[in-house]
Amino acid sequence: MSNSFFLKGDICWSASPHSLHTIEGGFLLCKDGKSGGVFSEVPKAYEAVPVKDFSGKLIIPGLTDLHIHAPQFAFRALGMDMELLEWLNTHTFPEETKYRDLDYARKAYGLFVDDIKKGPNTRLCVYATIHVPATLLLMDMLEESGLVSFVGKVNMDRNSPDSLREDDSAAATRQWLESFSKGRGGGRGPYKNTAAILTPRFTPSCTDGLMKSLAEIQKKGGLPLQSHLSENLKEIEWVKELCPASENYGAAYADLGLMDGPTIMAHCVWSDKKEMELLAEKNVYIAHCPQSNTNLSSGIAPIRRFMERGIPVGLGSDVAGGSNTSIFRAVSDAIAVSKLRQVLVAPDEKALTLEEAFYLGTAGGGAFFGKLSGTDFGAAGSFDEGWDFDALVIDEGNLADTVGRSIRERLERAVYLSDDRHIAGKYVRGVPL
Amino acid sequence: MSNSFFLKGDICWSASPHSLHTIEGGFLLCKDGKSGGVFSEVPKAYEAVPVKDFSGKLIIPGLTDLHIHAPQFAFRALGMDMELLEWLNTHTFPEETKYRDLDYARKAYGLFVDDIKKGPNTRLCVYATIHVPATLLLMDMLEESGLVSFVGKVNMDRNSPDSLREDDSAAATRQWLESFSKGRGGGRGPYKNTAAILTPRFTPSCTDGLMKSLAEIQKKGGLPLQSHLSENLKEIEWVKELCPASENYGAAYADLGLMDGPTIMAHCVWSDKKEMELLAEKNVYIAHCPQSNTNLSSGIAPIRRFMERGIPVGLGSDVAGGSNTSIFRAVSDAIAVSKLRQVLVAPDEKALTLEEAFYLGTAGGGAFFGKLSGTDFGAAGSFDEGWDFDALVIDEGNLADTVGRSIRERLERAVYLSDDRHIAGKYVRGVPL
Repeated sequence: MSNSFFLKGDICWSASPHSLHTIEGGFLLCKDGKSGGVFSEVPKAYEAVPVKDFSGKLIIPGLTDLHIHAPQFAFRALGMDMELLEWLNTHTFPEETKYRDLDYARKAYGLFVDDIKKGPNTRLCVYATIHVPATLLLMDMLEESGLVSFVGKVNMDRNSPDSLREDDSAAATRQWLESFSKGRGGGRGPYKNTAAILTPRFTPSCTDGLMKSLAEIQKKGGLPLQSHLSENLKEIEWVKELCPASENYGAAYADLGLMDGPTIMAHCVWSDKKEMELLAEKNVYIAHCPQSNTNLSSGIAPIRRFMERGIPVGLGSDVAGGSNTSIFRAVSDAIAVSKLRQVLVAPDEKALTLEEAFYLGTAGGGAFFGKLSGTDFGAAGSFDEGWDFDALVIDEGNLADTVGRSIRERLERAVYLSDDRHIAGKYVRGVPL
Repeated sequence: MSNSFFLKGDICWSASPHSLHTIEGGFLLCKDGKSGGVFSEVPKAYEAVPVKDFSGKLIIPGLTDLHIHAPQFAFRALGMDMELLEWLNTHTFPEETKYRDLDYARKAYGLFVDDIKKGPNTRLCVYATIHVPATLLLMDMLEESGLVSFVGKVNMDRNSPDSLREDDSAAATRQWLESFSKGRGGGRGPYKNTAAILTPRFTPSCTDGLMKSLAEIQKKGGLPLQSHLSENLKEIEWVKELCPASENYGAAYADLGLMDGPTIMAHCVWSDKKEMELLAEKNVYIAHCPQSNTNLSSGIAPIRRFMERGIPVGLGSDVAGGSNTSIFRAVSDAIAVSKLRQVLVAPDEKALTLEEAFYLGTAGGGAFFGKLSGTDFGAAGSFDEGWDFDALVIDEGNLADTVGRSIRERLERAVYLSDDRHIAGKYVRGVPL
């Protein structure tokens, strides 16, 4: 029992994608970094286990950011008057070029990691840049932070500025994978909380040859893969030109063997019926990034349709397409844009409820972490027994109110109004940050 | 010169609805509560005037919230899974009923005023409730805060719960207007920063007789008026039934003489061409409330069309339809929803730029305060000479960045990311709060 403890407080987590468990003054058990379940009183067998008392405070699972670009953090909330392709060329690519300089990377990634550590996200799937040394540095820093992350060295070998176009992107990827598997960070040895994810940027910036090599690397190592899909109408037209033989944008990945392992595709704003069928068949995780899809005038993804088809969905900040790193913001934005989608263009697609969007931001995205061979971490985002113990303690003290509220109401308010000042505790895999 | 001072810093304000003035290390002059203009160096004639040094910090005009319900602050960010009419009956009316109790009103309005004082808004147009004593209390508290506000006792005499339906709403309004004009708050005398605005809730809750009486009261006193217009499709259908003779919802007000003085109409999400013509002819101010229109699944207002027609537009939080009181949030939301409107339903309505939305949140709404007889305050939201001196000092210190940024970029970042922690100074009519 030496690695066990209880958190006492007002506990709330998803009972299903559509409903909540709430227990006032409950006891949440952590055993060796995993949830041991939630109890209304301490069971006899656990009477010796210490209790950390957060009575009156809200305790919820940690949030997962399924799609974020670490090198874009430095220019978040800038240049928001452009669409995707113009914005990439004007803001993103010049900034990402700077990460060939390790001193710059150290400074900028330091700000990024500090911000995430302070906020409510406990897990993230991260794009770095094409640069191997800076990507390894980012992995070191994330490992040091205690957060759990998948990090990807980005692949780009066509339609990119000279400074970001790789000669042999597959070789660089192999070199990257070899270097950290041997241990990094002054002999710290292999990472505990940090793992690799293959990251072809998107079809326009990767040749077919590169894609095929990545598929081979994936097959050997069982690695997960992340990329972008059907975000912007001009981008989709471009992919049609580049891949005339593929039935749709999603097929352009699948045809090259890139949806055969655990896969995250960000956005899927304009996925049609055929593409949805493919995503369902391949069990692809969709990273829904509502703030970014709005900021870059991309559109509103048909999340209700994905959920109906059983396609797994999580939420992403997509910084710097999105401006805010907190997945609380993504939860409220997911609800908000689903309402606009229903009222403006899809009257038969019911808007997301608080329960549904909260599920997406916790267990929905966090489940991706439980699918993977080659890491020892499990799924996060639920307090059901056996899930990784990622938990947030929310002290709503200064979210002014006049009367007592139900746990469900307090959760809703935390989603819409809380910021890092309200986080009174944060645990990742059972470890307090 | 005894009532004069300079603020030194990086100054930014609207040069037009579409462009910014920016001056690095400039000097903003305050003379007797008004702007004396902005200078790149202290002019000879003003060498004796003290300088408050905010070098390196951003100085912008105060923000105006053109539409907020003070009694709804207590339940902001709750019940966001409903549309307007259901939400009014389930959440709003039960809460507003509580304000017949002055002790409750003191507690809840105290939280409201504290929140606004800490945030970036310097002016607001406020709905209270039907209750005269609680409305006067709110005016006392707002006056005490140093903020500038129009406050309205709400009128409701039909289609309302018993607890909020007035027998003689016009008489109660006259009583309200008489009581504070005689001086309130322990003999403090007439208000300096607080004034009355007539506030028929909306057509469904006011009989024609009441509306006509309010028009008479307005004619005598030259008072401004605020109400709601064309927010939700079901509401609009209802007004059609209630006012079959009026050409549209706007005409239902105008036909009863309620658009002849200075007028604010909130929302105007579904205003058609005819209604726009009426709004333009009457020079009605539109309070655009993008977060509320999203939260309540109302839709997206055609702000580009209003601006093209020269109809004045400001921004509103519409708490508790909106969850956040900060008009910075309304600025970024106005941009966001205008992008979704363009990409989803109105390709020829260009999305709002940062410059345009910032204008709406400052001079756009603040200009309403300069139109009024019977108050001694002027328009706010600009640093052009002669405007009321409402200013914010923004210390972006902890908005992490890696490089120097232009003032325009720093403004954009403040709009998307800042919170009350970043407000290093707040002046209203020349007085620091």
